[in-house]
Amino acid sequence: MRAVWFENGRVMMIDQRRLPHEVSIVGLDNHVQVAEAIRNMTTRGAPSIGAAAAYGMCLAGLSGADIGAAAGTLKAARPTANDLFYAVDHMVREIGSGSDPVAAADGYAQMIVDKCMLIGGHGSSLIEDGMKVMTHCNAGALATVDVGTALAPIRRARDQGKGVFVYVSETRPRLQGMQLTAWELNQEGIPHAIISDGASAHFMSKGVGLIITGADRIAANGDFANKIGTFDKALAARALGIPFYVAAPVSTFDFGTPTGEEIVIEERSEDEVTVLNGVRIAPEGSPALNPAFDVTPADYVTGFITEEGILGPGEIWKVKG
Amino acid sequence: MRAVWFENGRVMMIDQRRLPHEVSIVGLDNHVQVAEAIRNMTTRGAPSIGAAAAYGMCLAGLSGADIGAAAGTLKAARPTANDLFYAVDHMVREIGSGSDPVAAADGYAQMIVDKCMLIGGHGSSLIEDGMKVMTHCNAGALATVDVGTALAPIRRARDQGKGVFVYVSETRPRLQGMQLTAWELNQEGIPHAIISDGASAHFMSKGVGLIITGADRIAANGDFANKIGTFDKALAARALGIPFYVAAPVSTFDFGTPTGEEIVIEERSEDEVTVLNGVRIAPEGSPALNPAFDVTPADYVTGFITEEGILGPGEIWKVKG
Repeated sequence: MRAVWFENGRVMMIDQRRLPHEVSIVGLDNHVQVAEAIRNMTTRGAPSIGAAAAYGMCLAGLSGADIGAAAGTLKAARPTANDLFYAVDHMVREIGSGSDPVAAADGYAQMIVDKCMLIGGHGSSLIEDGMKVMTHCNAGALATVDVGTALAPIRRARDQGKGVFVYVSETRPRLQGMQLTAWELNQEGIPHAIISDGASAHFMSKGVGLIITGADRIAANGDFANKIGTFDKALAARALGIPFYVAAPVSTFDFGTPTGEEIVIEERSEDEVTVLNGVRIAPEGSPALNPAFDVTPADYVTGFITEEGILGPGEIWKVKG
Repeated sequence: MRAVWFENGRVMMIDQRRLPHEVSIVGLDNHVQVAEAIRNMTTRGAPSIGAAAAYGMCLAGLSGADIGAAAGTLKAARPTANDLFYAVDHMVREIGSGSDPVAAADGYAQMIVDKCMLIGGHGSSLIEDGMKVMTHCNAGALATVDVGTALAPIRRARDQGKGVFVYVSETRPRLQGMQLTAWELNQEGIPHAIISDGASAHFMSKGVGLIITGADRIAANGDFANKIGTFDKALAARALGIPFYVAAPVSTFDFGTPTGEEIVIEERSEDEVTVLNGVRIAPEGSPALNPAFDVTPADYVTGFITEEGILGPGEIWKVKG
């Protein structure tokens, strides 16, 4: 099963808000529903958002909807992930040039999976037998249609017979690390432990060999946005001498954004922090702030693991299209 | 109301596990119950643990229990906070020299509060009008009988007419920042916002002037143990050029422990990470690791705010008794 796919004229996706307790599938009939599913995080993760948007454009194309308007609706769903814009623009071109919408969207989704396989191959070279690896949020199969970005090298290393242990930081407020990454690793029997986000430096100081995260947008200078909490890990990794890698397809690079300062950071509802499982956990009257992402300067990145190879922060011009 | 006190022959304390939803008071009749209340975190925070232990020894003294055995029971309740050992040893001496147990324990608790007032006075000099301050966990009145350690300078600055805004990191897994510190600040109308622990570096990079935390034990070289997540903040503060202060009474210094490496870090139940409000939030089968504290090397501390003044990491020998 993939995270997002097309079936009988509908866009199908795993409802990631119901995991890890239930594997629930939703079917969407039009691009407006797809935009809403991206906005409310039924599906999430930059590459999966891109695939969902591609299928949303596919529905718009099949129904004869206004392609420009549909593109605008989908692009407005969330502001940070570059793959959303990349996928919509790709589909606008494909539909405009007369491609079959279903074949074009299926091709886009398959391209993501193929890239993840390549990322896994390149990144697995960084993982030594017996290594402890730390990741944050979910850059696994759920986030990328299948295979994953940050989890791809781990999966590949395991397939190569290497022993690998994964520290999964839970990733408050929405707990994508605990509820999605740990779920994926548990399904596959890859040894792991969930830790509080604040325990990251503690465990890094006890022997982590490698940190790998995904990215939602990488600026032209190598600064990158990823799930809130990534910047803290990058700072700790530098201080403690641990290599810090970002795994992402080239579609996540945004050469139109010069630096991280220009990346729009989505502010989400404070309820994501103060309410859990429908119960308020904060004092009545205390406000919360809830940026969904942070920006890590390129200087803290050891390398970007892409489908075209591993690039240092100073080498990313090589993948500029 | 204080966090811990003595009344009608019983040790009374706010049940901090019920906050912020309910202010519930429990009364304890003997030192075994007090030890259990420390273990299960009915009361917590190094100085409040010390006061509770002093009152537990008071009950042992009043009832004619074996003082040595009672001291052992109380010291075994939790391993990391130095104040627990300091308070028990203090009461063994007081009871051994014929002091009234109630007066001795009340005196110990009042001494903590007096020290917190002095810490507030010294620390408030670091807070400028309009400053944004970040703290972690709860080193407030609940943690220290009254006033607080890390929160004392903030309260004093507010009383001096300075504007101050507090970023409260929620402090997973037990959420003492969200549920105790935010509750205290909200009660007093001090402007604040709750943030996820992983949002610390993000907000530091947007303009935090000062970080203040408490400590559970400070080794002879200035390395200190505090709530898990403190080390991450200290590393980020150093990288981003933000002063990082530790507020603690001299009773938290343990000159018998040479460095942070010798500090025993309590490992608590993984259920604290994987279960919230009685509901499992992690995938079935995924394990968690739950160290209650981390150790921050002295090198990352700008200064220690004690009742005897503010000391650099190289000056703490001055308060060796």
